[in-house]
Amino acid sequence: MQTFPKKKVEIIVEVALAKRMQETIEALGAKGYTVFPNLRGKGRWGERAKTGVFGVFENVMIVAITGPETAAKILEAARDLTREGIGIAYVSDVDVLRDEHF
Amino acid sequence: MQTFPKKKVEIIVEVALAKRMQETIEALGAKGYTVFPNLRGKGRWGERAKTGVFGVFENVMIVAITGPETAAKILEAARDLTREGIGIAYVSDVDVLRDEHF
Amino acid sequence: MQTFPKKKVEIIVEVALAKRMQETIEALGAKGYTVFPNLRGKGRWGERAKTGVFGVFENVMIVAITGPETAAKILEAARDLTREGIGIAYVSDVDVLRDEHF
Repeated sequence: MQTFPKKKVEIIVEVALAKRMQETIEALGAKGYTVFPNLRGKGRWGERAKTGVFGVFENVMIVAITGPETAAKILEAARDLTREGIGIAYVSDVDVLRDEHF
Repeated sequence: MQTFPKKKVEIIVEVALAKRMQETIEALGAKGYTVFPNLRGKGRWGERAKTGVFGVFENVMIVAITGPETAAKILEAARDLTREGIGIAYVSDVDVLRDEHF
Repeated sequence: MQTFPKKKVEIIVEVALAKRMQETIEALGAKGYTVFPNLRGKGRWGERAKTGVFGVFENVMIVAITGPETAAKILEAARDLTREGIGIAYVSDVDVLRDEHF
């Protein structure tokens, strides 16, 4: 079985930043992404849950599988976007079967 | 702390394909799997959200931790199942404490 | 781009164990965690879904990004906590940009 190495970027951000982050991911060249909604979390920003007033404290996780250069750009954009707000980002190695999809 | 290397297969598919994928994962020998429902996403298939008509555009992510041979079979099955429909699949390395559970 | 290696611990447990697991993760020194609710799953414990009676069979996934020593402690605590109940845990490698956040 031949596989191709890719990078998985995972970004956890408050809902208020999600749309900008998704647009940035596309603009930087990712062919797709997935959003996991309704996360609870706790971190240096305090506790966040979907029961926040008007849902403003809700978090989402955005996942994108890309090549290494695009992943690096997305990771840096996530760092910049979350510098003032809520968010963390990290990258890891994955293998895919269909190179052309990512 | 002794750990054992395993593979994590992650498959994102439209809801219509999820049940067949879950049955395939079990048939191929995985001892368990987890389903993350209600995902939003965007990719080569266009945009998908839980607000799609009758929910048909909703995606799920299915995660299974297995040995390398089972993971390869699941990955190939996911490729075949999503050839005509919506889906991506990828595999990565994880370490577990309880070898006998996977 | 300079990145820093961290460990990602992922723990899937029944809802009844989630709060104790979250408290343990914080007590062991993690600076944050994220909870993915409403998971379905199947494993050595039988089938679990959010449609279980009173939701008692619902699972969650708790994710924490930490250094290697904290990750090892969390993994062992997860093993102990789930010895009698429902749960699996595994660890993998990730890279982050902001070392001081984890």
